Amino acid sequence: MTKHPERDLSPYIERGIEDARRLCAQPTIAAQGLGIEETARLVEGLLVDMGFATQWLCPSAGSPVIYGELQGTGPFTLLLYNHYDVQPPEPLALWDSPPFEPTVRNGKLYARGISDDKGEIAARLAAVRALIAEYGTLPLTIKWILEGEEEVGSPNFGEIAERYGALFQADGCLWEGAGRSPSGRPELCLGVKGLLYVELHADLLAQDAHSGLAPILPSAAWRLVHALASLKDKGGSILIPGFGDDVRPPSLGQLAALEDEPDTSESLRDLYGIDAFVDGLSGVALRERAAFGPTCNIAGVWSGYTGEGVKTVLPAEASAKLDFRLVPDQRPARILELLRNHLDAGGFDDVSVTQLGAAGPVVTPLDAPFVQKVMAITEAHYGVRPSVRPLSGGSLPLLQALEEHTGVPGLFAPGHPGYWRSGAHAPNEHIRLDDFGDAVRFLSVLFADLGSSL
Amino acid sequence: MTKHPERDLSPYIERGIEDARRLCAQPTIAAQGLGIEETARLVEGLLVDMGFATQWLCPSAGSPVIYGELQGTGPFTLLLYNHYDVQPPEPLALWDSPPFEPTVRNGKLYARGISDDKGEIAARLAAVRALIAEYGTLPLTIKWILEGEEEVGSPNFGEIAERYGALFQADGCLWEGAGRSPSGRPELCLGVKGLLYVELHADLLAQDAHSGLAPILPSAAWRLVHALASLKDKGGSILIPGFGDDVRPPSLGQLAALEDEPDTSESLRDLYGIDAFVDGLSGVALRERAAFGPTCNIAGVWSGYTGEGVKTVLPAEASAKLDFRLVPDQRPARILELLRNHLDAGGFDDVSVTQLGAAGPVVTPLDAPFVQKVMAITEAHYGVRPSVRPLSGGSLPLLQALEEHTGVPGLFAPGHPGYWRSGAHAPNEHIRLDDFGDAVRFLSVLFADLGSSL
Repeated sequence: MTKHPERDLSPYIERGIEDARRLCAQPTIAAQGLGIEETARLVEGLLVDMGFATQWLCPSAGSPVIYGELQGTGPFTLLLYNHYDVQPPEPLALWDSPPFEPTVRNGKLYARGISDDKGEIAARLAAVRALIAEYGTLPLTIKWILEGEEEVGSPNFGEIAERYGALFQADGCLWEGAGRSPSGRPELCLGVKGLLYVELHADLLAQDAHSGLAPILPSAAWRLVHALASLKDKGGSILIPGFGDDVRPPSLGQLAALEDEPDTSESLRDLYGIDAFVDGLSGVALRERAAFGPTCNIAGVWSGYTGEGVKTVLPAEASAKLDFRLVPDQRPARILELLRNHLDAGGFDDVSVTQLGAAGPVVTPLDAPFVQKVMAITEAHYGVRPSVRPLSGGSLPLLQALEEHTGVPGLFAPGHPGYWRSGAHAPNEHIRLDDFGDAVRFLSVLFADLGSSL
Repeated sequence: MTKHPERDLSPYIERGIEDARRLCAQPTIAAQGLGIEETARLVEGLLVDMGFATQWLCPSAGSPVIYGELQGTGPFTLLLYNHYDVQPPEPLALWDSPPFEPTVRNGKLYARGISDDKGEIAARLAAVRALIAEYGTLPLTIKWILEGEEEVGSPNFGEIAERYGALFQADGCLWEGAGRSPSGRPELCLGVKGLLYVELHADLLAQDAHSGLAPILPSAAWRLVHALASLKDKGGSILIPGFGDDVRPPSLGQLAALEDEPDTSESLRDLYGIDAFVDGLSGVALRERAAFGPTCNIAGVWSGYTGEGVKTVLPAEASAKLDFRLVPDQRPARILELLRNHLDAGGFDDVSVTQLGAAGPVVTPLDAPFVQKVMAITEAHYGVRPSVRPLSGGSLPLLQALEEHTGVPGLFAPGHPGYWRSGAHAPNEHIRLDDFGDAVRFLSVLFADLGSSL
């Protein structure tokens, strides 16, 4: 492992922040098909400027994956994954500055997508730029996948991963990254939960009715409320029979890693303004639930009149969006089947279930050489042993396809500029500018040391 | 009772349809405070053109009541009630023509408010115009109240009724009107249900969260779903303890009136595209439930992401609008108290309840002289005994105030151009032009005969 002299990376960091602002000023809302091609061209332009050879990998339907490759001098090949799409910005009223006008306040940069995930694209670019400036060439080969449909569950990434599995071969993959805990300790994460995303819909009348007819007409809103209530009890237990049958309990090694993780519960409580977590959990039990607890979450529900004031209507239709986070060895197809069976058994055969996204969980073994290498580089750079989370609470549905078709071991390493406190998926998404600089400095070391490691 | 020669009212009917189109082309959405003053001026102009002396009766807050008075030759004084505001037009995508561009298709006139209640204002005006043209003067005195906040629960009408109770004195009141059954039989209705309209709200997080945190963060959406599910069981029974304690069973006379009512269930089933009513009800049992069944209706519910596609969010807030229709002798203040107690007892003290509207039920006795008079005139005009509904499924919160402060007996009589099949409160609201003509013809007879009746 190379000992790195103190270098002044500030010109590259500043340039990287400019790139991040340019990326975020361009809306890219995959859920609404907004700004996809414009952003893809913008991303490609940034890669080409750095000397990457680029390709548009286009699925038979859906948004292009931008692929860039830059040959380096060393034998190590590193695969990078990012996505250039973002979540919808709603509710707009809760933003303090417009979501697509990147704005700096108090050392923080606010914009939709700055944390998830455009800021990281810019940080990785900045590290590459710094290395090329220093060495004249890259010390490792970088293959870079930039997807445009991550926030809608990567419905077409499987096709791309299958078709280009050979092109994506590498010695290790940095997934969309992790960062540092509030205390500054670097963090690695080795897996993601699976996801089943469905829409429930009840449509009981040909048209909305005056609510004076409520004594005798069926109500889609009540029907949906009762169907939902049948899925989970007031205490939070999921009531779908068989839901937990395939859940594999965490191993002793995984539990030990959870023991070693920092306690971030206080900052989480502050961020969300809560006195306590569900079931009063704390410490290792809280982390175990966060990592290994499967969920049935209501991401959205709507029916009838949702505007200001009073409207006395009996709504014809009602809908809900549910996301189930799945842990090893739950499979989305099986959960979907159990959900449908449960609704039918409860008499809710008139409530339709439409799958909008699905992926299984993915976990990289702790003893994979790439994992051990990144851990060592991280510890050397920060002077502190990184914590290792065996399973993240989030999901990246593309990882299942990437793992299945390439076999490249992946992980979430430090180098993400906004992992904590960043309001991902929420109003006022932001990163701290200091975190961005820290990410660029670490990534330039990580790339250099991986380059000299084979 | 005068025997009326066949008169050609078609010029007055055509002019009335023009007035109806003018009124509907002007949006008047009380829930959004849209177009109130413009419509008030338009309504006043129509009254002044007919010779009415007008006043703006302004509550200390809220929209003006337009009051018009036209002295007639006969001793009878008739009070008319209408409202010039309309329901919001949403969902816009389901309208076949723009809601505020009145459009005729296949003998029907489509527009928001044409049935509820601007078309009736125009029909009453047309009847007054026809009588003045024929007799040179009105045979009775008309006092006309036109309110602008009916669709938001008439929050300020109580103040107006209290202040102007003496001005509103009359021998009888035609409330916003009724019409004829699908078979053509005229209908009277003698009362309305009470209404309690509330908004439930859960706000559990300082901001929306990534749904990866769902294992450990409380969910406002689930909280609201469980609070709602605790109010009513899957079979439709309301679970709030004490909710039904004050319900007075229908009297034998009321049940006899229900027996005599026409069976409109088939057209209702067609209109709403349903195979059966709740609990498989039919016949008198269906009519009894419709008239005397109190309700707990979900008028709207919303939380989280409600747009297209996928968003994996754990919503910070969730809301629902509920309307309770109350029967004699339920009182809204008591129901509100029972609702709050029930939520508290179920552990839902973190779900807030905000009252947005409230009024008690109102019923005029079947043997009131005004009721008997209108029944006789109706039977003479149509050649068929009218059906009499003792209690409507709908509510007019202002009626409680009107009754309390004036004591004038009121009813819903024929003369409304769009009572049936009209999509009130729903997309594609409309009236049949034939029904409009029928209403004008009947109203001109009703006004004339009431004028000669004292």
